[in-house]
Amino acid sequence: MQRFVPAFPNRLSGLTINSTRLWDTIHTSCQWGAAHRYGKNLTDTGMARLALSDDDSKVRAWFVSETKKLGCDVTIDNMGNIFALRKGKNGGPMTAIGSHLDTQPRGGRYDGILGVVAGLEALRTIHENGYETNYDVGIVNWTNEEGARFPKSMHASGVWAGVTPLEEAWNLADIMNPSITTKAELQRHGYLGELTCSSASYPLAAHFELHIEQGPILEGSNKKVGIVSGAQAYRWLTVTVDGRDAHTGTTPFNARKDPLLAAAKMVVHSNELAKERGALASTGVFKLPMGSSTNTLPAQVIFTLDIRHPSHGVVKEIYSKCIEGFNKIAMEDGKGVDVTIEVETDSPEIKFHPDCREAIRKAANGVVGEDGSMDIMSGAGHDSVYTSRICPTGMIFVQCKDGVSHHPTEYCSPEDCSIGAQTILDAVINYDKLRVE
Amino acid sequence: MQRFVPAFPNRLSGLTINSTRLWDTIHTSCQWGAAHRYGKNLTDTGMARLALSDDDSKVRAWFVSETKKLGCDVTIDNMGNIFALRKGKNGGPMTAIGSHLDTQPRGGRYDGILGVVAGLEALRTIHENGYETNYDVGIVNWTNEEGARFPKSMHASGVWAGVTPLEEAWNLADIMNPSITTKAELQRHGYLGELTCSSASYPLAAHFELHIEQGPILEGSNKKVGIVSGAQAYRWLTVTVDGRDAHTGTTPFNARKDPLLAAAKMVVHSNELAKERGALASTGVFKLPMGSSTNTLPAQVIFTLDIRHPSHGVVKEIYSKCIEGFNKIAMEDGKGVDVTIEVETDSPEIKFHPDCREAIRKAANGVVGEDGSMDIMSGAGHDSVYTSRICPTGMIFVQCKDGVSHHPTEYCSPEDCSIGAQTILDAVINYDKLRVE
Ligand SMILES: NC(=O)NCCC(=O)O
Ligand SMILES: NC(=O)NCCC(=O)O
Repeated sequence: MQRFVPAFPNRLSGLTINSTRLWDTIHTSCQWGAAHRYGKNLTDTGMARLALSDDDSKVRAWFVSETKKLGCDVTIDNMGNIFALRKGKNGGPMTAIGSHLDTQPRGGRYDGILGVVAGLEALRTIHENGYETNYDVGIVNWTNEEGARFPKSMHASGVWAGVTPLEEAWNLADIMNPSITTKAELQRHGYLGELTCSSASYPLAAHFELHIEQGPILEGSNKKVGIVSGAQAYRWLTVTVDGRDAHTGTTPFNARKDPLLAAAKMVVHSNELAKERGALASTGVFKLPMGSSTNTLPAQVIFTLDIRHPSHGVVKEIYSKCIEGFNKIAMEDGKGVDVTIEVETDSPEIKFHPDCREAIRKAANGVVGEDGSMDIMSGAGHDSVYTSRICPTGMIFVQCKDGVSHHPTEYCSPEDCSIGAQTILDAVINYDKLRVE
Repeated sequence: MQRFVPAFPNRLSGLTINSTRLWDTIHTSCQWGAAHRYGKNLTDTGMARLALSDDDSKVRAWFVSETKKLGCDVTIDNMGNIFALRKGKNGGPMTAIGSHLDTQPRGGRYDGILGVVAGLEALRTIHENGYETNYDVGIVNWTNEEGARFPKSMHASGVWAGVTPLEEAWNLADIMNPSITTKAELQRHGYLGELTCSSASYPLAAHFELHIEQGPILEGSNKKVGIVSGAQAYRWLTVTVDGRDAHTGTTPFNARKDPLLAAAKMVVHSNELAKERGALASTGVFKLPMGSSTNTLPAQVIFTLDIRHPSHGVVKEIYSKCIEGFNKIAMEDGKGVDVTIEVETDSPEIKFHPDCREAIRKAANGVVGEDGSMDIMSGAGHDSVYTSRICPTGMIFVQCKDGVSHHPTEYCSPEDCSIGAQTILDAVINYDKLRVE
């Protein structure tokens, strides 16, 4: 395995993370949920660790045990968010390093995982150096950030931030198995904590997150660290198209209620609308839950739509045009179909806090020099998007190979993982000092 | 339950089927696989009895036992086709009444089932009247006519007729679970008979089939019996579109290999091509076998296409245009996708045999009078399409409510079931007499 032992002579904190331990810990944590092998090396697999699955439950138990070894107080709220707190000199809310351990069904080893494990490495480094922070510092593992299983991204940080009502979040069902709710899975795994999930019950002084970029910009610009300025807006829809099963050979077009043809037209139409506005619109899920066969028109199609643009206004505009267009399409063929559209996630664009960005910039300057970093906008949503509504928040991006993410071959080199972890450690310590001033 | 006790004073054979027994037997046989309840009556359900499923295996055992009670010789070939033969005065191949007991996943209680149970009722009537036929007369239950589970319609009659090689038919996999082959399921249920499936090993003198129309023409024309002139041509394709999983929020359109967008465009395009030519093109299966989530473009989409027209030439022309169009679409967006197209079923249009049509016309005249029947073309394929390549074949259609088929509410009234069964009995006895001449 390729090892990277960095020097970081100009690092702000004076502390140095252990790059080898960081790398090993990332892949130790991936023993739960490793899947989709693509090469011969032990770590040449992707991940399938859906939120609140058995594997997610196991990695959570491991995470709790590792933070307890550092003397952390561990609190679990009733959305399964895990807060591991290491005491500082003074009282008050902790400065958090947060991200998520859940993955996509065909995801990679770094998205979210790097952020949590870098937090662990930061705490280990602080701990073994006997470094005393001014305030409590800790890690948060947020539940179902991906929204892959329960189709609401940043599901639990959204509840914490007061964006999503608890009951609604609890009732959100597995997109592949509507009989399983979030709450039932929290209960089954023992992650339905007693503390109410909210920023009032468990306040944070600030939230820092390290994440792979999930895009090609840093790599293309030859920059090692991205100081994330904010995140683009997006809205997720679940579209249900109801028709009627019928024989494909004996049912003339004009007698059909064909939900599949209508849904296909809607997918194509949404793509055209997004293209016109320089936005994105994508369908990731497309299913025929009432069953299907070659010679039967299905009774129902359910598909998702993910609309994104740096401006929430544009997202909303495309959404409206989709509604309008979908309703037209529903009447176009045969006897028409019925369409129901539900908004699952709605995340306006956000800007991160100047203090956090400044702390990150200073930290990055120490680790990779002024030329090694750049300001960057996030195409994806992150738990930090929701924490930023409540407390000062900042994000650090590092490169991922070819910009590939949500794919088994997603890759962040040992060097980039280390750069990210050292930067977040330095930013947090820097911020901890700022808090006294 | 509504009962219909018909008189049929002018019936050709002089024998009278037992309408009540016919109706009861249809629904007795539906105890295996009943599903999708839509009303309160015992029989207000559809069926889910996929070929070679556990329920199909059970109804087969029942069928064998019922025919043995009539003194039939039962033979099972190595495609699981069941031949139940009642001896006549002379040797030579039997005159068969054939259809199928398998159903769609959301199918009805009459498609195929009526044909087999009417055969049973015809044999019961012959038997209890001590009627001696000139030649052997029997019933055939053909395996996987629907092509719903293993995606080749008239799967086993195609092997019998020499259209599909046995090995290819054996290797055909479950469209929802590619690890299960037809042969494995035949073996598991004990329906991999010793006799080679072929018209040489088990020849038939003629094949008669009673089926619901599956369309609205008889009902609309106020005719009770359809004398089927032939069946339209069709071709089934399985289209595999390979792309690459990628993040929906961070992957620009020009960097994508999006199989779902491409597949949606292909579905829409094939529909347009069919419309232009007065043909049908339909997608019944559309699946994302590599997994899916709202914020990931899937790696692969597989969908089916069913193209139909009275002329095989037009079907082939639309097929060619689809290939051309799909290859263009594959290159249209982002970095393009890969398309693989496999032809699963190819069934040219056919005409049924004049002798069989004549026997049916005479029988129908006796049952419903000259005004009660009409010539009609079949939109669907049937086992008779393949038997007609080998032996004289004829088909009888009866009305189904609103032309609905391949739907749980598919319905054929007791009266129409009886008319059909009496007509096929009379046609077969008529044909048996013809054979002596
Ligand atoms: N980073 C990430 O993939 N988050 C999930 C929410 C989103 O799709 O943007
Ligand atoms: N009758 C019937 O539905 N047969 C299955 C083959 C077809 O789809 O035409």
